[in-house]
Amino acid sequence: MAAKDEGGEVEEQVVNPWEVSAKDGGKIDYDKLVDKFGCQRLDQSLIDRFERLTSRPPHVFLRRGVFFAHRDLNDILDAFERGGKFYLYTGRGPSSEALHLGHLVPFMFTKYLQDAFKVPLVIQLTDDEKCMWKNLSVEESQRLARENAKDIIACGFDVSKTFIFSDFDYVGGAFYKNMVKVAKCVTYNKVVGIFGFTGEDHIGKISFPPVQAVPSFPSSFPHLFSGKDNLRCLIPCAIDQDPYFRMTRDVAPRIGYHKPALIESLFFPALQGETGKMSASDPNSAIYVTDSAKDIKNKINKYAFSGGQDSIENHRKYGANLEVDIPIKYLGFFLEDDAELEHIRREYGAGRMLTGEVKKRLIEVLTELVERHRRARAAVTDEMVDAFMAVRPLPNMFN
Amino acid sequence: MAAKDEGGEVEEQVVNPWEVSAKDGGKIDYDKLVDKFGCQRLDQSLIDRFERLTSRPPHVFLRRGVFFAHRDLNDILDAFERGGKFYLYTGRGPSSEALHLGHLVPFMFTKYLQDAFKVPLVIQLTDDEKCMWKNLSVEESQRLARENAKDIIACGFDVSKTFIFSDFDYVGGAFYKNMVKVAKCVTYNKVVGIFGFTGEDHIGKISFPPVQAVPSFPSSFPHLFSGKDNLRCLIPCAIDQDPYFRMTRDVAPRIGYHKPALIESLFFPALQGETGKMSASDPNSAIYVTDSAKDIKNKINKYAFSGGQDSIENHRKYGANLEVDIPIKYLGFFLEDDAELEHIRREYGAGRMLTGEVKKRLIEVLTELVERHRRARAAVTDEMVDAFMAVRPLPNMFN
Repeated sequence: MAAKDEGGEVEEQVVNPWEVSAKDGGKIDYDKLVDKFGCQRLDQSLIDRFERLTSRPPHVFLRRGVFFAHRDLNDILDAFERGGKFYLYTGRGPSSEALHLGHLVPFMFTKYLQDAFKVPLVIQLTDDEKCMWKNLSVEESQRLARENAKDIIACGFDVSKTFIFSDFDYVGGAFYKNMVKVAKCVTYNKVVGIFGFTGEDHIGKISFPPVQAVPSFPSSFPHLFSGKDNLRCLIPCAIDQDPYFRMTRDVAPRIGYHKPALIESLFFPALQGETGKMSASDPNSAIYVTDSAKDIKNKINKYAFSGGQDSIENHRKYGANLEVDIPIKYLGFFLEDDAELEHIRREYGAGRMLTGEVKKRLIEVLTELVERHRRARAAVTDEMVDAFMAVRPLPNMFN
Repeated sequence: MAAKDEGGEVEEQVVNPWEVSAKDGGKIDYDKLVDKFGCQRLDQSLIDRFERLTSRPPHVFLRRGVFFAHRDLNDILDAFERGGKFYLYTGRGPSSEALHLGHLVPFMFTKYLQDAFKVPLVIQLTDDEKCMWKNLSVEESQRLARENAKDIIACGFDVSKTFIFSDFDYVGGAFYKNMVKVAKCVTYNKVVGIFGFTGEDHIGKISFPPVQAVPSFPSSFPHLFSGKDNLRCLIPCAIDQDPYFRMTRDVAPRIGYHKPALIESLFFPALQGETGKMSASDPNSAIYVTDSAKDIKNKINKYAFSGGQDSIENHRKYGANLEVDIPIKYLGFFLEDDAELEHIRREYGAGRMLTGEVKKRLIEVLTELVERHRRARAAVTDEMVDAFMAVRPLPNMFN
């Protein structure tokens, strides 16, 4: 069946939590997506505001437009400016043993937000979702959730401000009550419009959107936010998760809650080119945090789509096409030094730098990133996972 | 929209958990219902087996055909005969402050089963369901659940063998994992076929069937049945709940569980006549456990539909039509003495006894029943409710 948008028209660019595909195998049109979803572009004045309010340089993902769209971010920053706090909510569907670089993007950014604003963070591991969508057993989904928690903790979150939970562990009580409140406000036709479900989808899928919605409401976490029902929530996520939070924002005022604010990222491109998200079924489409230095070198050299010309002669003459070049895209995510990135872009674009040289620099950057992550993950003990996942108060979460 | 059955044909008798209506305002055709649902008639040989196995007379609701249909009851009794135990599961949707006599029927029968077989019992209060269907607040649904628990406890259940739980309190953990396992096996089209949902129904309704399904599985109660995954479940309920358990029985073997067995009752008729269940919106259609002796007398005399003739002369000549006479139906539920009931039926049917005399006897029977219930309920303390609803092991549940 062809994917349909909310109006029922057949469309060619599909972006929802389970499918990201561009029109005719081309690039995702993010302008069109922002228009369709009805979110806002994150402009320079907002980025400047981040810098002013946090007294630190904006994260590279802000400077480079990786987090490029938002909903109600101004309200969060207005409140913060007046001394009001908020909390962060992000998550992961634990469907695989190892994370790839694209999976790290929201967590790296969320870590920056936690440090810069000094705010608490809840991280939802949707083991129930993956059990239902990927047909994993309950036990396997829970095992993956715990393994993924180690990778998340390795991103450097502050245990005194962070609560990580698995749905299979945590759904119930106040959280379940909020799920019911949300579910009452959303018709089947509505979720069909938002998520594209069909009559042959199982009811687990139809039941799930409220599970991802309710961490947006502080009352879902009485051990953290009891008596703080007016606390606002900011959700950093990739833009494919927007449908969940469109639904959440639609429901929130009807059940007496604030709408969560969002800050949304582009998709991290596959090695083979920028036509959507990476494919879990093709290990050569992504760099994993478990890849060795040799794997990284091999994958970049062999699979990273190059915008360079087909001969050195032509390359020197025409220069690289930076618009499609994956090494340049990846450096844009992970090379911190703005001046060096600009230098590479200029030299490579003018044909003075060759693809091999750019890839060599990228291999260095990614090897260092992955090695650093691997060391951090190796240091994550079971006791640390238990500490992050314990249902407990966080007395210093706003300090 | 006209109610449709699973084949999509428009039908005239509708029986599902939210609607019971006979064809053309007539009587429910239970034979047709048994055929359509695919359950079995509970015949005399099964009733004799109850007597033999439990060494006590079969309950009046068995002798009089109130519990008239079943699924796999033979399997439960076979297992019991070989020394195998089972557990009972029943429930209530707490949508009103006071219960009426029809609400008491499954609990009175379940109490008999618990005593006769010496088995544990779980009672589900579906406060989440009523919050979603009746548009009650979470808090009000929970309050009603606790009030209704008092009426249920007043039926005489053994606290050392009984766990009463509210969904808002108890959903989570092992229970939620089973909900997800069930939900994965049931498509939206399937629940539309079973329950008649439409696209304009909210997703809370579509999400609910697994909540009512999973108390059928012992692993949903690790504090009670840990290590007893093979324990069978018997569900006493009115036959309008059959759709939930048809679905449950369909799913059970696919997720490695036993199908629950069922023992199903007729509907308790309204005072105005046997055309379905009683209407919550018309207090004069039912006798409530909160009705005073005066209320009972007044309601029976004024509203109980009589099969007597329109003049004493005609009544003496033709006798009463027992098939439509509500006082006779009610006495069939609640007058324990078989000989007396037979005497009344014979005399009334022959016109030698008048409607007023039959109603007088019914008023006595119901006043005594309601008074006894009221005394028992008044003796139920908050501590007793807490004890029944505590998540705790039941060490002597099979003794």
